[in-house]
Amino acid sequence: MTDAFAERTRRCQQRLDAADADALVLFPSTNLFYLSGFREHPGERHLLLFVPEDDDPVFVVPDMYGEQIADESWISDVRTWSDGEDPLSLVESVADEFGLHGGHLLVDDRMWALFTQGLRRTLPDATFGLASEVLDHLRMRKDGGEIEALRTAGEVADRARRNPGTRRGRHRDDGVRTGRRDRSPTVDAGGDELAFDTIVGSGPNGAKPHHGYGDREIGYGDPVVLDFGAFVGGYPGDQTRTVVFAGDPPERYEEVHRAVLEAEQAGVEAAQSGVTAESVDRAAREVIESYGYGDEFIHRTGHGVGLDVHEGPYIVEGNDLELEPGMVFSVEPGIYLPGEFGVRIEDLVVITEDGCERLNDSPRTWQAL
Amino acid sequence: MTDAFAERTRRCQQRLDAADADALVLFPSTNLFYLSGFREHPGERHLLLFVPEDDDPVFVVPDMYGEQIADESWISDVRTWSDGEDPLSLVESVADEFGLHGGHLLVDDRMWALFTQGLRRTLPDATFGLASEVLDHLRMRKDGGEIEALRTAGEVADRARRNPGTRRGRHRDDGVRTGRRDRSPTVDAGGDELAFDTIVGSGPNGAKPHHGYGDREIGYGDPVVLDFGAFVGGYPGDQTRTVVFAGDPPERYEEVHRAVLEAEQAGVEAAQSGVTAESVDRAAREVIESYGYGDEFIHRTGHGVGLDVHEGPYIVEGNDLELEPGMVFSVEPGIYLPGEFGVRIEDLVVITEDGCERLNDSPRTWQAL
Repeated sequence: MTDAFAERTRRCQQRLDAADADALVLFPSTNLFYLSGFREHPGERHLLLFVPEDDDPVFVVPDMYGEQIADESWISDVRTWSDGEDPLSLVESVADEFGLHGGHLLVDDRMWALFTQGLRRTLPDATFGLASEVLDHLRMRKDGGEIEALRTAGEVADRARRNPGTRRGRHRDDGVRTGRRDRSPTVDAGGDELAFDTIVGSGPNGAKPHHGYGDREIGYGDPVVLDFGAFVGGYPGDQTRTVVFAGDPPERYEEVHRAVLEAEQAGVEAAQSGVTAESVDRAAREVIESYGYGDEFIHRTGHGVGLDVHEGPYIVEGNDLELEPGMVFSVEPGIYLPGEFGVRIEDLVVITEDGCERLNDSPRTWQAL
Repeated sequence: MTDAFAERTRRCQQRLDAADADALVLFPSTNLFYLSGFREHPGERHLLLFVPEDDDPVFVVPDMYGEQIADESWISDVRTWSDGEDPLSLVESVADEFGLHGGHLLVDDRMWALFTQGLRRTLPDATFGLASEVLDHLRMRKDGGEIEALRTAGEVADRARRNPGTRRGRHRDDGVRTGRRDRSPTVDAGGDELAFDTIVGSGPNGAKPHHGYGDREIGYGDPVVLDFGAFVGGYPGDQTRTVVFAGDPPERYEEVHRAVLEAEQAGVEAAQSGVTAESVDRAAREVIESYGYGDEFIHRTGHGVGLDVHEGPYIVEGNDLELEPGMVFSVEPGIYLPGEFGVRIEDLVVITEDGCERLNDSPRTWQAL
């Protein structure tokens, strides 16, 4: 993998030139992992990676990380500072060395204000943009290894949905009653860890797209939105199904579920190389509008998926990016009826030379297995 | 709790005046939860809370969050934007309304560059500081409910350490072999979820303070650094013990463990109202220096703990903040011998009127229970 990380860094440096930028400045994020191979959560200590246009990248890290980064990253130039010292002196000396004081720096999109304000104070003559200006292009186009990891993550999510033993047991035990404990089926099914907090939105809670989980008792006939996925090798699954475990669903439910299912199918069929991201959104949205629920589809149709669960390409009106082979994203239309219920169906797809491939394919019926 | 959140907001607004600031601008973070009662992970969509000096706070959120925030926060002024619209137009209209265009704004310390750059573009005449300038003062001084939650989280961590059934079973099964699966004892012991990735640093891995967990097989006589904690009611436990499960430890181990244990005790004894944060660091460090391991204690002595696992007060050289009753922080000296092993011992304390109270108190001996 060292070669793959180094090669990505080289391609990124080429793009810096085209973007009239002098360096990237990353902090603990998937961008930093994507180039360096070193993975860490953000923290309050300065841990930065400088990727200058024409020189080798340099880490600026707390003393206590020195040994760990030497083990985990191909980048060998690691400058350390100690608790009690001012890390910005070290930042300034790196900026001196690479002539960045009056430069244009692209900072990590997720860098905390705590650090960007420090950079601005230390380099008052520099100008700032976002790392995504060069990195999104690379990260959106997945290589074979990335697609393989995403395919496996899709299979894990399918297994969590399909395995009646696991899911029935869970739901009989406590999943049905509380939702709260229903966090591990995707991990049990072979994932490394949850990609995000599982959404278990029953009844009216399903009408809040980002409802997490709670203590609501699921009643007979309640529709339940299940949105789940686990990381496999650093890449997430992300799948949504809406089901009714037992009892008869509410009156409009079957029609709403059909509308969402058809919209999802239309979105997947529209997803192919050469079309725009917004055209996929349009294809799904038109189906829901034709059923008269356009105002109740209150979010975009999808988001890219990779090292981040949400990344480019965003499948949203106004995004005229042309889809290309290797792009991976969700198609997840939904209809939300406040106070009643919600329905969402979501699959991940990868754009191929002649259309797209679904990365997961568990049953989409609303009848619980 | 609504009253408590509203009262915090009122006190925060009073401090804005003293800081010559016109508004706070928060994004999904513990700061936002601390004032609003609404909890969410950061995401790529604009979800901001404006807290002006003299007016009621205003949420700017994606359409899909409208209902959820109305349910979960006492703040009733919620302005929404939809996918496909430009959220910065809404930001601009809020800035118009509160006269923030030429103002001084304190942004969330953890706000992503993606959003701070958008704010700077939208409000080119504004100046920017950090929300911590007013919020740290409030957040560092815990109220009774917060201390109670932290005390319970400490008991949960103690139970995870003390319960031989749980831990022996774990370690015999797979904890000893891989570390990787050893993630749930603290949750089993009554926590809501892990406060951070458990650290299981055996042998040479223990010499890397932020080593996570891995596949290294733990050998007989290997020292193992265990750093763990779970959230209870939103507040974390954070405890470290260094143990040897079976076999004779390396030659210098007993002396190193004794040095760290005495340093931890010295740090806890030094922690009291009216002394500086750095004096606690000094007290622990002097013990380790007296054993000749000063250069191997490569980090600060501790960090504050609250809604964030790392927050103020930082127990570090150069921090002359005076400790006050209600402040909660870790005392966690360590000695790290690269290629050999590491030892760290950590407890949380709360400053009281007449000294400090340990929030956890499981055995600190290196002999595994």
